[in-house]
Amino acid sequence: MSHLAREIAAQPQILADLIRTQAGVAQAIAGHIRARAPSYAMIAARGSSDNAARYAQYLFGALLRLPVALATPSLFTLAGTPPRLGPALVLGVSQSGQSPDVVAVLEAGRDQGALTVAVTNDEASPLAQAAEHVLTLHAGAEQSVAASKTYSASLAALAMIAVHAIGDGAERKRALVALDQAPELIRGALEMAAGPVANVAAAWRDTGRAVVLGRGFNFATAHEIALKLRELTYISTEAFSSAEFRHGPIAALDPDFPVLAVVGGGALDGDVVRLAGELRAANVRLTTLGAPGADLPAPRAPEAWLAPFAAIAPGQLLAMALASRRPGDIDRPRGLSKITRTR
Amino acid sequence: MSHLAREIAAQPQILADLIRTQAGVAQAIAGHIRARAPSYAMIAARGSSDNAARYAQYLFGALLRLPVALATPSLFTLAGTPPRLGPALVLGVSQSGQSPDVVAVLEAGRDQGALTVAVTNDEASPLAQAAEHVLTLHAGAEQSVAASKTYSASLAALAMIAVHAIGDGAERKRALVALDQAPELIRGALEMAAGPVANVAAAWRDTGRAVVLGRGFNFATAHEIALKLRELTYISTEAFSSAEFRHGPIAALDPDFPVLAVVGGGALDGDVVRLAGELRAANVRLTTLGAPGADLPAPRAPEAWLAPFAAIAPGQLLAMALASRRPGDIDRPRGLSKITRTR
Repeated sequence: MSHLAREIAAQPQILADLIRTQAGVAQAIAGHIRARAPSYAMIAARGSSDNAARYAQYLFGALLRLPVALATPSLFTLAGTPPRLGPALVLGVSQSGQSPDVVAVLEAGRDQGALTVAVTNDEASPLAQAAEHVLTLHAGAEQSVAASKTYSASLAALAMIAVHAIGDGAERKRALVALDQAPELIRGALEMAAGPVANVAAAWRDTGRAVVLGRGFNFATAHEIALKLRELTYISTEAFSSAEFRHGPIAALDPDFPVLAVVGGGALDGDVVRLAGELRAANVRLTTLGAPGADLPAPRAPEAWLAPFAAIAPGQLLAMALASRRPGDIDRPRGLSKITRTR
Repeated sequence: MSHLAREIAAQPQILADLIRTQAGVAQAIAGHIRARAPSYAMIAARGSSDNAARYAQYLFGALLRLPVALATPSLFTLAGTPPRLGPALVLGVSQSGQSPDVVAVLEAGRDQGALTVAVTNDEASPLAQAAEHVLTLHAGAEQSVAASKTYSASLAALAMIAVHAIGDGAERKRALVALDQAPELIRGALEMAAGPVANVAAAWRDTGRAVVLGRGFNFATAHEIALKLRELTYISTEAFSSAEFRHGPIAALDPDFPVLAVVGGGALDGDVVRLAGELRAANVRLTTLGAPGADLPAPRAPEAWLAPFAAIAPGQLLAMALASRRPGDIDRPRGLSKITRTR
């Protein structure tokens, strides 16, 4: 059994432990957010963590009405004077906590007196040291180069912070109850998708290109599935929101290559469902993913913002199934190492 | 001659006219920005305009120390209560000014008392009506579905606003003098690249996949070239910053498909140049673009933030040259229309 397979399977337990043991930490961080009332959040992250940051963009916007900017780290490492971050919540997400460019954004935020928070799997990392507050994932060492458990744990950590920061007590309570479903959603999805994934993997056998579509909360899911497909299977995979796709990339669509549409994310997903119908009518090789009736099914989420916990699992399984057909060690894709230090 | 060819060739004159005739408008908008001192900017845009917004992310950060968030329009059109935008500069960029989701972000900003600015080619459009202040591109009707002149004009409009908003008078003056070089940069690039583009297009004849790398100011250029390749040639093209690329997608790199590296953007481009060297050493099919010594050359920009005006031209010419080899009308790619209305 590969590290990847073990780490994907471990996700429900890791999320359950995280939600249970780190509730106090998340609550304390949320308290600082409510007290400081930042005018926006700036999130620095790379790779899978950047996809978790995309999730936070929608999550913080929908739950807290807090606008989120994704950091452009080169402005902090290479361009001299960094942007002004005083009124921001500055958040760094990195499983290793090692990438100097992500650390630099947190350092700039702290220098400027902004509220700084790190979400990382290593509480002794430079990122954890740079931030005023730290939420540690406690996901255990991730041996597979391609992230899985630290991605879903990062989603959960960000959701914990957001939910605890909801101002209205009744709403917060309801969201906390919903959040407790996250481990069960990913467990159910891993179970439901196992069989169908084998069929889709067989149908995708010879593809060198793919497109993944998602929107709203599942825009992050689309990007993370695309990244898994690239890293693990070497398939050239582009991720788009359905809106972006209609504004140009749809022209490059070819009946020869498959399209994966991530659904199940409630009202924000409506246009993906519509686009999926149009693509199916046009005989595109379409696979839907992430909801009870989808080709790659997953349980229905009790709240739209929880859908990414259900939808990521079939995507991880699909990438793993496709990767198991290529030569080489699935846990060590060519050209990558576990810790990537970019500036 | 196609509309696209005419519109690409018209860019130097359009930019010169824009910079000359709209200086007063840009100055007035910049005056409002300096007076209101927004804590960050939120930019709403789609397609090529979204790539212009990516440029503004670096430009506003480097020139004004103003953090920029790219809007997630579905939070404004589909999710109920929109994010809080009070202390923001809310900017909408759209050549047609028609897309309801972009308009919705501006309307939310204006409702909430934020400073709102539209950059559009149609001063009577819904976007122009939604914003308090409007900078019109005056680029003439764009007949080609794939945008060219409205992209570079949007870059110029955003640069005009940014440069006029620089607080320090001497710095502002120097930047204004540099900005006057934008039309000449694009003119010089169109001239320098014409011959080399034909060779690269011949070498790329049979490719179905490509990667474009850029960073800093030219991150926008990489995305815009990728979009032109997708729209015009139907090549599956992914754009990445060199840092993103190292954090995963590099695994999917295949000696069979070409990589385009956008260079010429000064200090922020250093890592792209380094990565290009590594890729060349690994026998990847690499083409550099955007600086005097590159495979697809362009004039050197007097300031790093002007490099995208030089670098976009060879990318447009390459996409056009490749598109002229496919069947069908170059001005009407399959599956697209000039005005795309997404919600």
